[in-house]
Amino acid sequence: MKTLNNECIRVVSRPTGIPSTENFRIVAEAVPAVAAGQVLVRNEWLSVEPAMRGWLADANNYASVQVGEVMRSLCVGTVIESTVDEFRAGDRVMGWFGWQQYAVVEPGAVVQKITGDLPPSLYLGVLGLNGVTAATALDKIGAPKPGETVVVSTAAGGVGSCVGQLAKALGCRTVGLTSTPEKVKACYEQFKYDHVINYKTDDIEQSLKDACPDGVDVYFDNTSGAISDTVMQQLAIGARVIICGTASIQKWDPQPTGPRVERLLLTRRARMQGFILFDHMDTYGFYVGQLEAAIKAKDLTYREHLTEGLETAPGAIAELYRGENLGKRLIRLS
Amino acid sequence: MKTLNNECIRVVSRPTGIPSTENFRIVAEAVPAVAAGQVLVRNEWLSVEPAMRGWLADANNYASVQVGEVMRSLCVGTVIESTVDEFRAGDRVMGWFGWQQYAVVEPGAVVQKITGDLPPSLYLGVLGLNGVTAATALDKIGAPKPGETVVVSTAAGGVGSCVGQLAKALGCRTVGLTSTPEKVKACYEQFKYDHVINYKTDDIEQSLKDACPDGVDVYFDNTSGAISDTVMQQLAIGARVIICGTASIQKWDPQPTGPRVERLLLTRRARMQGFILFDHMDTYGFYVGQLEAAIKAKDLTYREHLTEGLETAPGAIAELYRGENLGKRLIRLS
Repeated sequence: MKTLNNECIRVVSRPTGIPSTENFRIVAEAVPAVAAGQVLVRNEWLSVEPAMRGWLADANNYASVQVGEVMRSLCVGTVIESTVDEFRAGDRVMGWFGWQQYAVVEPGAVVQKITGDLPPSLYLGVLGLNGVTAATALDKIGAPKPGETVVVSTAAGGVGSCVGQLAKALGCRTVGLTSTPEKVKACYEQFKYDHVINYKTDDIEQSLKDACPDGVDVYFDNTSGAISDTVMQQLAIGARVIICGTASIQKWDPQPTGPRVERLLLTRRARMQGFILFDHMDTYGFYVGQLEAAIKAKDLTYREHLTEGLETAPGAIAELYRGENLGKRLIRLS
Repeated sequence: MKTLNNECIRVVSRPTGIPSTENFRIVAEAVPAVAAGQVLVRNEWLSVEPAMRGWLADANNYASVQVGEVMRSLCVGTVIESTVDEFRAGDRVMGWFGWQQYAVVEPGAVVQKITGDLPPSLYLGVLGLNGVTAATALDKIGAPKPGETVVVSTAAGGVGSCVGQLAKALGCRTVGLTSTPEKVKACYEQFKYDHVINYKTDDIEQSLKDACPDGVDVYFDNTSGAISDTVMQQLAIGARVIICGTASIQKWDPQPTGPRVERLLLTRRARMQGFILFDHMDTYGFYVGQLEAAIKAKDLTYREHLTEGLETAPGAIAELYRGENLGKRLIRLS
């Protein structure tokens, strides 16, 4: 077989805050030979995740990427060579293939084989980590009941837009927090929120009181920070707060301060719980199935924010944190 | 029936911080006539609770006592006159009879009729709110498994000493936080903690690391504040934090600040949940039964801190907050 050239993105330094282009370098390398027990995948779509910032931080983190490594990423690609029985050339797969054109991996790196008639790139977004995070955390921690009020931060984002729609389909009153007129419009028109608050221009406290007259039963939080502090004040008795991300706080070392939550949690008998999808991979397929059904039932729509070419990847994490994306951020490789 | 004189303690002002003698007045009144559907109880033991501070605060509280009212309290007493079928003269009862010698109440004020051979005053402590709070919150929120590490703040107190012993009986490693050499001794000798930390004299962070090499699986917190902040740093993956009280923070209005917990909860996939026993009265009897069995099995011992006479009640809440009591604080009326 001819030697393939592989462009890949390696981590060259740890960011102190949000990862940017200077923390990565694009290098051209030969694709390694495929050994027995391995599979060669050609990547077609690469994912960009807020969690990448955590993977690159060295403090208090649960899954670090090391300097020198190809940047970790979920990707959708096609198997072009296989030495194992589970896969053969032509299979579409989603898995941990990294920010690169080609990946030689063990079968364990594949999260799922993609079949069916939905677009393959969805398995990186609404049918991937984003959607499965939304569905799993909302169900297992939020456990919303019909008629309850569900507030979502980053309401137009990959996870948030999915949470809002799943809660709406369950019969909840949904309230989204977002940051631009364009996102407000998408939240109302596409993601069908009952109320949308622009936290950059609206009076958040008053808007929340108006939108949640009986308080907040479920708060799905991807942000932390001042906006969350305001939502916490409106918790209903028995509220559930899902801590799924902390995007609004750029540094956790040293630990920043904020309003103490203990008395709020006590008087409202509320629960705050951290969620990381990797603890719930045993139910991954179950929730993908639920999400596929929701898409087919037209209860769940999605947006993708696609750029073309590997060279657009290194700056993409910072874009996420600047709130510039609308929908799932993907890189398309041609 | 002759008119009875009733000494009672009425609330005359709201405290700004911890309630003290100046917020109460002892007044002598005639016992009201017992109307149809009512019961007259002569109090024998009155309870003093940390929660009384919350009942007297007017901000963010779930169950306020109004100025002018007899101070709310659970009591154990004897029915001396009854117009209802459920009770008759001579019955021992525990219920909401207030800081006074005599109470005329509806049957709904009675929490339970006391039978059996255990001392009646226990139904205000280890078999009352304290014990049932400990048993219910530990079971429903903490859900400790054998071999896990359970940390208890106010380890020698009415609730804490019960939590420590119940967790120990379940096969957990128990670590108590307390404040005086006398309490440290009681924690080791009577309440059988595996490790006890004197937070006033020990290096809490290092002592916790030594006592909890695998981290803290369950933190039963009655205090909030700096000590809790240190414990939170040691949470294990999947930890459960029970917010049962906030005794170390004297004012919640305005909301005090402290280290933000969101990232900790996320990276440890931990849960923090407020607990108020009044949400769980449907299981009250069940947990009293468990506690009675634990006492008879010698898995559960207790201390009472008793003073004599109604006039010792008004200053007793402040004593609790000064950490002067060891065991359940009670007032005996002769």
